[in-house]
Amino acid sequence: MPDIEIVEVSPRDGFQSISAFIPTADKIAHIRALHAAGLRRIEATAFVSPSAVPQMADAHEVLATIRADLPNLDAQVLVPTARQTERALDAGAAHLVFVLSVSERHNWGNVRRSPQESAQEYAGVLALAGAQTKMRLNVATAFDCPYDGLIDRHQVFALLDLMIPMAPAVEVALCDTTGRATPLHVRTLFTEAMARYPASVRWAFHGHDTYGLGAANILAAWDAGVRIFDASVAGLGGCPFAPGATGNVATEDAVWMFEGMGIKTGINLAALIETGQRTEATPGAQTGGRVRRALMARKASDRRIDA
Amino acid sequence: MPDIEIVEVSPRDGFQSISAFIPTADKIAHIRALHAAGLRRIEATAFVSPSAVPQMADAHEVLATIRADLPNLDAQVLVPTARQTERALDAGAAHLVFVLSVSERHNWGNVRRSPQESAQEYAGVLALAGAQTKMRLNVATAFDCPYDGLIDRHQVFALLDLMIPMAPAVEVALCDTTGRATPLHVRTLFTEAMARYPASVRWAFHGHDTYGLGAANILAAWDAGVRIFDASVAGLGGCPFAPGATGNVATEDAVWMFEGMGIKTGINLAALIETGQRTEATPGAQTGGRVRRALMARKASDRRIDA
Repeated sequence: MPDIEIVEVSPRDGFQSISAFIPTADKIAHIRALHAAGLRRIEATAFVSPSAVPQMADAHEVLATIRADLPNLDAQVLVPTARQTERALDAGAAHLVFVLSVSERHNWGNVRRSPQESAQEYAGVLALAGAQTKMRLNVATAFDCPYDGLIDRHQVFALLDLMIPMAPAVEVALCDTTGRATPLHVRTLFTEAMARYPASVRWAFHGHDTYGLGAANILAAWDAGVRIFDASVAGLGGCPFAPGATGNVATEDAVWMFEGMGIKTGINLAALIETGQRTEATPGAQTGGRVRRALMARKASDRRIDA
Repeated sequence: MPDIEIVEVSPRDGFQSISAFIPTADKIAHIRALHAAGLRRIEATAFVSPSAVPQMADAHEVLATIRADLPNLDAQVLVPTARQTERALDAGAAHLVFVLSVSERHNWGNVRRSPQESAQEYAGVLALAGAQTKMRLNVATAFDCPYDGLIDRHQVFALLDLMIPMAPAVEVALCDTTGRATPLHVRTLFTEAMARYPASVRWAFHGHDTYGLGAANILAAWDAGVRIFDASVAGLGGCPFAPGATGNVATEDAVWMFEGMGIKTGINLAALIETGQRTEATPGAQTGGRVRRALMARKASDRRIDA
């Protein structure tokens, strides 16, 4: 049994940042490779408006195929509304991720409603999901907002005070959407949230590495007691507010850190690096992370020494 | 007064990784720019064999010039032997860094003697330095060695047990030479070292970012109570064992993290980023770090929006 859970988000948070449509078969092959590397929980796709995010237009086919092919994969899918939840359930979704933003402006930009309206929408999503569907709540801009800057923790708690009582056993991910959170901020927010809400809540951290604090923020969340972390192979996923600056924490960097600390992830690093190398070749991919490049450079250098 | 001390090492650890000779005037201009950005302690050069490291052949001129020009700069210089210490003192050195490796093989490769012989050499260096010269002890491969892998802490303590009693008030830097240390390792080694040796020892951490743990390891050292950190603007400095993989923690990444946590560094980030941009243009420079690229990309994007 792994000591922590890494949730691979490249098929959703990574692919959505690529404008050229990735063939559905390639998306499915990518998920299969991640599963073969040991990942057992993958954010497979998003049920969102196909006109807003054309890359996710094949959500139904991707989810239905991997649900049939990989029975021991926990495939979670993102949904922003009750209407999209119906689509996801039709496709066989067994694990939903409801997303909303703490920041008013960011939530309007993302889903064209206020955070309070999204909280009401969440009630509808919960009713549709019922007890048999797993649920996660993704709280975006929980630390910092691209429009409003630093987010006060009381604003986060005001929103969670509305939402957690609706489903007190749901997993809650506090998301550093911009990558501008710092380790003390991460540690403090999780420590306070854990003290404030019932022990039934499972906490997760979704971070970005845009400012080089991806690993440090994961460590800070782990210090606070978080055991579920989102990451994206090859760091796939750009930050729309900083073109050229990569986004998500690379899964291989997180695996490297945890395994190096004796904390088991259940993931095969060599297989993951190979998947990362193929991912980097995806047209339009913005990749990042350090471990893959260091290990590949080392391999190249060993070859030169051998030759 | 800053809350922590950042020691800029690019003129030594960064420049020594570049094979094409950097004109002495450019080295001096680089140090002046770093000083203007608020850095008050800089590892300015190394007094080593000019045949082994031709880049450092102008050590005397670099040190003598900046000592005259920047009286409030604490300019430390690296010395591996008593003989090189004499050269450094002739050039006006007021702050010496004696370096040796815990790992037998690494120390032989670096200075052609055993760690125990280097410890004896240290006695000679201390005698030459006297009470009026500041001293730091750099303990390389304190966590991991490129040849021997993970270093046992008892091997570190066996060496420190020889050396610290020779000068119990000297600053000691534990160096993660390969970048393969992990945060729990860093936290544990510093915590145990602080408990084992007299309170007069000031501890410093020198880390590398090769595997993406630069910031996380600095955070771990800070958690343990370390307040002195080495860093290199633009992450300058390759790792000779992983060509293509950058090395030192970028000073701007460290400043970003600490200032974001409300911990004052005394350094002007914008001026530092400008120096980093110029540093990146140095022929042969291997640069890294995330903050500079994210902020420059953001700036470029803002410009596009304005246009």
